[in-house]
Amino acid sequence: MESAIPSHLTTTRCRHRRVDDDYKPPYPSFVARHGAGVSRVVMAYFGVQYRAETAAAPPSTSDFMTLVSRADGPSHWDLAHHVDQAGCANDVFVAYWDDVLRFDSWFEPARLAWTGSGAEGSGRFIEVLRPAIERYETLFSSLGRPEGIAVIAEGMSGEVLEHAYWGGMRDRIPLSQTNEMRSLGKPTLLQDGPRLRVIAQDNLCMIRSGQDWSDTDAAERRMYLDDVEPVLREGMDFLRDQGISIGCYANRYMRLRGTDGVLTEKSYGQSWWQSLSALERWAESHPTHVRIFGAAMKYLSSLGPAAKLRLYHEVTVAAADEQFFEYVGCHAKTGMLAAVS
Amino acid sequence: MESAIPSHLTTTRCRHRRVDDDYKPPYPSFVARHGAGVSRVVMAYFGVQYRAETAAAPPSTSDFMTLVSRADGPSHWDLAHHVDQAGCANDVFVAYWDDVLRFDSWFEPARLAWTGSGAEGSGRFIEVLRPAIERYETLFSSLGRPEGIAVIAEGMSGEVLEHAYWGGMRDRIPLSQTNEMRSLGKPTLLQDGPRLRVIAQDNLCMIRSGQDWSDTDAAERRMYLDDVEPVLREGMDFLRDQGISIGCYANRYMRLRGTDGVLTEKSYGQSWWQSLSALERWAESHPTHVRIFGAAMKYLSSLGPAAKLRLYHEVTVAAADEQFFEYVGCHAKTGMLAAVS
Repeated sequence: MESAIPSHLTTTRCRHRRVDDDYKPPYPSFVARHGAGVSRVVMAYFGVQYRAETAAAPPSTSDFMTLVSRADGPSHWDLAHHVDQAGCANDVFVAYWDDVLRFDSWFEPARLAWTGSGAEGSGRFIEVLRPAIERYETLFSSLGRPEGIAVIAEGMSGEVLEHAYWGGMRDRIPLSQTNEMRSLGKPTLLQDGPRLRVIAQDNLCMIRSGQDWSDTDAAERRMYLDDVEPVLREGMDFLRDQGISIGCYANRYMRLRGTDGVLTEKSYGQSWWQSLSALERWAESHPTHVRIFGAAMKYLSSLGPAAKLRLYHEVTVAAADEQFFEYVGCHAKTGMLAAVS
Repeated sequence: MESAIPSHLTTTRCRHRRVDDDYKPPYPSFVARHGAGVSRVVMAYFGVQYRAETAAAPPSTSDFMTLVSRADGPSHWDLAHHVDQAGCANDVFVAYWDDVLRFDSWFEPARLAWTGSGAEGSGRFIEVLRPAIERYETLFSSLGRPEGIAVIAEGMSGEVLEHAYWGGMRDRIPLSQTNEMRSLGKPTLLQDGPRLRVIAQDNLCMIRSGQDWSDTDAAERRMYLDDVEPVLREGMDFLRDQGISIGCYANRYMRLRGTDGVLTEKSYGQSWWQSLSALERWAESHPTHVRIFGAAMKYLSSLGPAAKLRLYHEVTVAAADEQFFEYVGCHAKTGMLAAVS
C-alpha cells in the first residue's frame, strides 16, 4: 500500500488526512505517476459547437489534426461528443502536455487559428488548465488502460491508500497537505471583439470522470447500461441543467469517438465547479449522486473483482493564473460562459 | 447559524474541520447544550436477558425502579426492548446523569444489586460510559422532544453548522479540534466470580441513534414503515450479525417501552465500535448504510419540511477509564462480550 501523494511531493503537514495510517481500503485503486521532473501539466479542451440537425458537422477534426501535428503539439489527445441542453452538438477535443514550455510555444498560434476559424453557424471554444503538479489528482479502478492525463504519465502507482472514503479526492491532491483550497470570488466576463473570455476565481475546480464498458461481457454490459448508466445520466443532466444552484457551473456528459470518428463504449463527464468543496458536497450528499453511488455500489458488490467495467477520474483545483477560457459563436450556456450569463 | 461546539469548549485547533466557515447545511439540525458547569455526563445501560418464550419476563422493572429511586439516582431514564440474535429477549434501561459525583455515590450498591440478583435462567448486564463533555456529541432533526442524554441538558442549540456532510459527527465532538481519537488495542475479558467484565481500549465508540414516528400521519407513517424501516432494520441486522468484520462489536435495535410497558412508536439502535473511524467508514460507504442513507434521503426530499419523523443520535468516544462493562448469566454475544468471545 502506498500513498497517492508521491514521496517527492510529500511535505510537512498543517492539515490532516481524513483517515488513519492504518486505514485499509476495501478494494484496490491506482493513480497516475509522473516523473519527478514534471512540475506542471496542461489539459486543453478545444470544442466545436453546431446545430445537431445540420447534416454534416463542420470539418473540425481536420482543423484540429493540423494544429496538433505542429511542433510542440500535445503528447496525447482524444475526442468526445455530446448534444447539449440547447440542442447543439459539440465535438470536444482534449489535449495533454507535461511540459508547459512546449505548450506555451504551441498555444498562441493554435488559439488564433481555432477560435478565428469558426464556420458560419458554428461556435468554437478553448478551455485550458495548466496546474502545478501539486494541484491535481487521478484515480483508476484498474491498470492497463490509462485515460486522459494519465496517458502521458510515466506510469501507474501500486495500490494507494487514499480512496474509497469521502475526502479521498482531497487527500490525494498534494496541496491538501497544507492548504484548504478555499475558493472565493466569482467568474467575470471579458469581451475581445467576437471572442468572449471568462476570468474565473482562484481554486476553480474541474473533474473529468470516465467510464469504459468496452471489456464487459453481455451480462455485465446489460447490467451497466440498464442499472447504472441511466442513474449516472440523471445525475449528469441535473448538473448540466440545475448545477448552478450547488456550485457546478457546467457539465458535459460525453461519448468518446474512436480514431474513425465512431462512438466508442467509453464516456466521461466533465464539469466545472466553484470549488472542490462544492464538488465534495454534491458527491457526498446530493440525492442525484447518492443514487449514482448506490447504483455503483450495488453493481460492484454483486460483481466483485470480476467486474470488467473501468472507472477513472482526474480532478484539478486551479490557481487563477492557471486557467484560460475563450468562446466565440457559442450559446450562453456553453462551459464557463454559463457562470457569467 | 452557530457551531455545534459551544464557545466554552472551543480551543486552539491543530486539526481542521471538514467544511469551510461559509458552509451552509441544506436543512436545519440542533444539538443538546449543557450548562457550562457540566464537565462530565454518565450514560448507564442496565439490561436483563431472558428466553423470549418464557411466559413472564423477570420482574426487572420493579428492581430497576427500586434502584433509581435511591438517593443520587439518575436525572432521566428510559426502557427499550429487543429480541437478540440468540433468540433472547432483552429489556434495556438506560439512565443519565450530568454529575459524576452523584453517579459514583449511587452506582456501587446499585451494581451489586443489579448483577447480583438475576433470576434463574435470566442474565443481567451493565454497560456504563462516563465521558468528559469534550468526548461526545448529539444531533437532532427537530426541537421540542429531547431523547437520551439530551433530556438532562440545559436546552437545545439553534441551527448548527456541522451537519449534513460526512465528517460532521467527528466535527461536533469538541475533542476533534485537537485529537484524532485513534483507537488501538483490543478488549480483554476479566472474570470476577460469576461476573464477566470487559476491559476495552481507549477511544471505544458508542452510538445511540433514534427514530420517532409517533407524530406522523397515516401516509407518512406508511412511507416510513414500508420504505425506510425495513432498510434500516437490514442495516441493523448486518451490524448485529456481521458487524465484527468492520469494527462493530455489537448492535441492539430496540423499541422503546412507555411507562406502562407497552411498545411505543419510537426505536433506537445502540452499537459499540472499535473506533469512531470504524463507525465513519460504515456510515459512509458500506452498502447497508448507503441504502439506509438513500432511503432516508428519498423520504426526506419527497416530504421536505412537512416530515413529522424525528431523528436523533448521540455519539461518544470514551477514554479507557470512562468505561465499565459487567455481565452475569448472559450469552456470549451480549454487548461487549461479543468483542472477546
